[in-house]
Amino acid sequence: MRDEAFWAAATAAAVDADAADPLAGARALFHIPERLVYLDGNSLGPMPHASAREIDRAVRQEWAEGLISSWTDADWFALPTMYGDMLAPVIGADDGEVVVCDTTSTNIYKTLHAALALRPDRRVIVAEGGSFPTDLYVIEGVLASRPDVASRLEGRDGADLLDLIDEDVAVVLVNQVDYRSGRKRDLVEVTERAHAAGALVIWDLCHSAGVMEVGLNAAGADMAVGCTYKYLNGGPGAPSFVFAARRHLDAIRQPLSGWWGHAAPFRFDQSYAPDPGIRKFLCGTQGILSFRALKPALEMLGEYDLGDIRAKSVALTELFIRLVDETCSEYGVTLMSPRATEERGSQVALRHPEAYASVQALIARGVVGDFRMPDVMRFGFAPLYICHVDVVRAVRILEEVLADELWREPKYQVRAAVT
Amino acid sequence: MRDEAFWAAATAAAVDADAADPLAGARALFHIPERLVYLDGNSLGPMPHASAREIDRAVRQEWAEGLISSWTDADWFALPTMYGDMLAPVIGADDGEVVVCDTTSTNIYKTLHAALALRPDRRVIVAEGGSFPTDLYVIEGVLASRPDVASRLEGRDGADLLDLIDEDVAVVLVNQVDYRSGRKRDLVEVTERAHAAGALVIWDLCHSAGVMEVGLNAAGADMAVGCTYKYLNGGPGAPSFVFAARRHLDAIRQPLSGWWGHAAPFRFDQSYAPDPGIRKFLCGTQGILSFRALKPALEMLGEYDLGDIRAKSVALTELFIRLVDETCSEYGVTLMSPRATEERGSQVALRHPEAYASVQALIARGVVGDFRMPDVMRFGFAPLYICHVDVVRAVRILEEVLADELWREPKYQVRAAVT
Repeated sequence: MRDEAFWAAATAAAVDADAADPLAGARALFHIPERLVYLDGNSLGPMPHASAREIDRAVRQEWAEGLISSWTDADWFALPTMYGDMLAPVIGADDGEVVVCDTTSTNIYKTLHAALALRPDRRVIVAEGGSFPTDLYVIEGVLASRPDVASRLEGRDGADLLDLIDEDVAVVLVNQVDYRSGRKRDLVEVTERAHAAGALVIWDLCHSAGVMEVGLNAAGADMAVGCTYKYLNGGPGAPSFVFAARRHLDAIRQPLSGWWGHAAPFRFDQSYAPDPGIRKFLCGTQGILSFRALKPALEMLGEYDLGDIRAKSVALTELFIRLVDETCSEYGVTLMSPRATEERGSQVALRHPEAYASVQALIARGVVGDFRMPDVMRFGFAPLYICHVDVVRAVRILEEVLADELWREPKYQVRAAVT
Repeated sequence: MRDEAFWAAATAAAVDADAADPLAGARALFHIPERLVYLDGNSLGPMPHASAREIDRAVRQEWAEGLISSWTDADWFALPTMYGDMLAPVIGADDGEVVVCDTTSTNIYKTLHAALALRPDRRVIVAEGGSFPTDLYVIEGVLASRPDVASRLEGRDGADLLDLIDEDVAVVLVNQVDYRSGRKRDLVEVTERAHAAGALVIWDLCHSAGVMEVGLNAAGADMAVGCTYKYLNGGPGAPSFVFAARRHLDAIRQPLSGWWGHAAPFRFDQSYAPDPGIRKFLCGTQGILSFRALKPALEMLGEYDLGDIRAKSVALTELFIRLVDETCSEYGVTLMSPRATEERGSQVALRHPEAYASVQALIARGVVGDFRMPDVMRFGFAPLYICHVDVVRAVRILEEVLADELWREPKYQVRAAVT
């Protein structure tokens, strides 16, 4: 184990880095439980203080007092596009190209169907076999009603996603950042390769929106989906979002044609006519209380510079990897995430045979990461509220867990039903 | 206009009826803004006081302090079936047959696809042309991917829904209570007629769940959907629910195959395998904050008797209709809802050429109903918090609006964008 002097020097350097951090003021905007190093914002982001106030207003004033009139007076009906427009600059989109609604899985379903309809003569969906599984499950659901279409998966049908893209491909569904390894794809390169073959791309931004410049329009991206409960701090199960490039909006049709996606939902026509804009991705009545916690983080992201956010994210992950290399590698920890900065998102995955129990021991000591089967410890670094000192503390406790073999304690060896 | 003596007598009778009301204690459990007669609970139910406390706990403790651990520690992942089991007795279903999730429109889409798959040789969906439009819009979305299937609509293809059901029909999608007229269908009769022809029935319970005994299993119903933000007081855009009879669960497949519907969602398998039970209707991560406000009303409905609730609903609507007949018919108001008790839900629709402006004038005087195009005033009577005295007050103010032609005031003549 490294001695006190090692950790004192590391901490002193971290204190200096934090002092120079242009994002240092953001941390106070979040509720971070005392003494907790929360490296799981890539799974559920912590609460902005302002979110509690937003929810209070939505419940005690708008619902309790305003009742039905709040649909207009409190702009409830407009929230999907209001928040969509706030989110647009965070992912490099324009006004009117993003709508917040439903769940990521549902939005993948909509966008896949929309993409297949835009490429009616093509018969293949390309995706990543190592994707977060819901992307693959939803592809299966789409294929069930499209027996003429097949999937091609990276890892099953070929080693590299790019090699799977040819002129039979209608659409590529791809994660900008992999949920386990943190591997970051080149958004421009994949989009260009797909377009060169005449295919469309749907970007899954679940692990990238909010911690880096996404640049959808700069890359000429077609569609995208993502969630808002991770790095966008919208609260547990906060709604998803859909992006569609303006050039596709006219032609897009999606099958979940509920009344909120109608061109004139309050005319109560008997026939469906899709909204001409991004609202055509809406379906049913949206859960207003789950929306409202999202606004504060979107406002924050409008105030901070995405370049600064990415720079700090890189600094935090590099510091973490360097300290892990120096202190933990001798205990059998290996780096699963790419070492090259440009290939890495804002999370770092480590491998260790006792990953599950080690994560439990870390949590017991106030460092929250998470476990992914079979042997992965995953840590997310959200630049708005994680500081350099947190990183030093986390690695010091990880070294302690590994060096003292604290993971051997029986209480950490029990698998929870939900992991 | 009726004189003071008339209204004093009506009020005295209402006070007596309220004193004898077995549900009288429930009103205090809700936040009803002062001096408001809220007859729009059929559109957005008022807030139970306990809902604000539930939301507080979900936000300030479970999210803010518990963070990711609340997925298990606060049972977030289990809420769809926990609340489903609480809702089951309210609609005459059994444990394991109801799940709370997503939106009504989305759940109509899932159940229609599921029904078509259960009747693979049949080619027709029957529905009501006068249904709340989203039901019809979603049918269109389903037909877009099933060009072999067609719809038959009551009012377009025949005068009576029952006459449209024959051996070509796969599924009948029908509302137990019509959103405009309040007309109530006989759940047993329609289900039997459909089954006699070999068809399935999906009941839309949006305007009936919570204000009457629904009796799905007693009628042998196949599937059902409904919303929880009206008579179930779950808050704005609270999640929907799906019922499927246990006998169908094994065979049911629905296309929105997201990870929450997987048999082992945390095993992260690459292939989809549906949960064997009602969770197979789940898709993506559910909005926990929008769920949490729902629990108090479900608990209340578990404590009160649905027979008492229906009896009071009938008493309130009969009182309203009688007083309107006696005081408002001379001003051109006619009853749109069925006069026969057994054919009426818990809402009453009136027609008047100046319905829009009249509703605005009523709202300005503290009586909230709503307008439906072109000439309908709609009033919902939720037995847990509406009392007989409310009904008398509402009709007295309606008479005042009509007799004094208050609806002529220019401010009430302006159509809002959203009505």
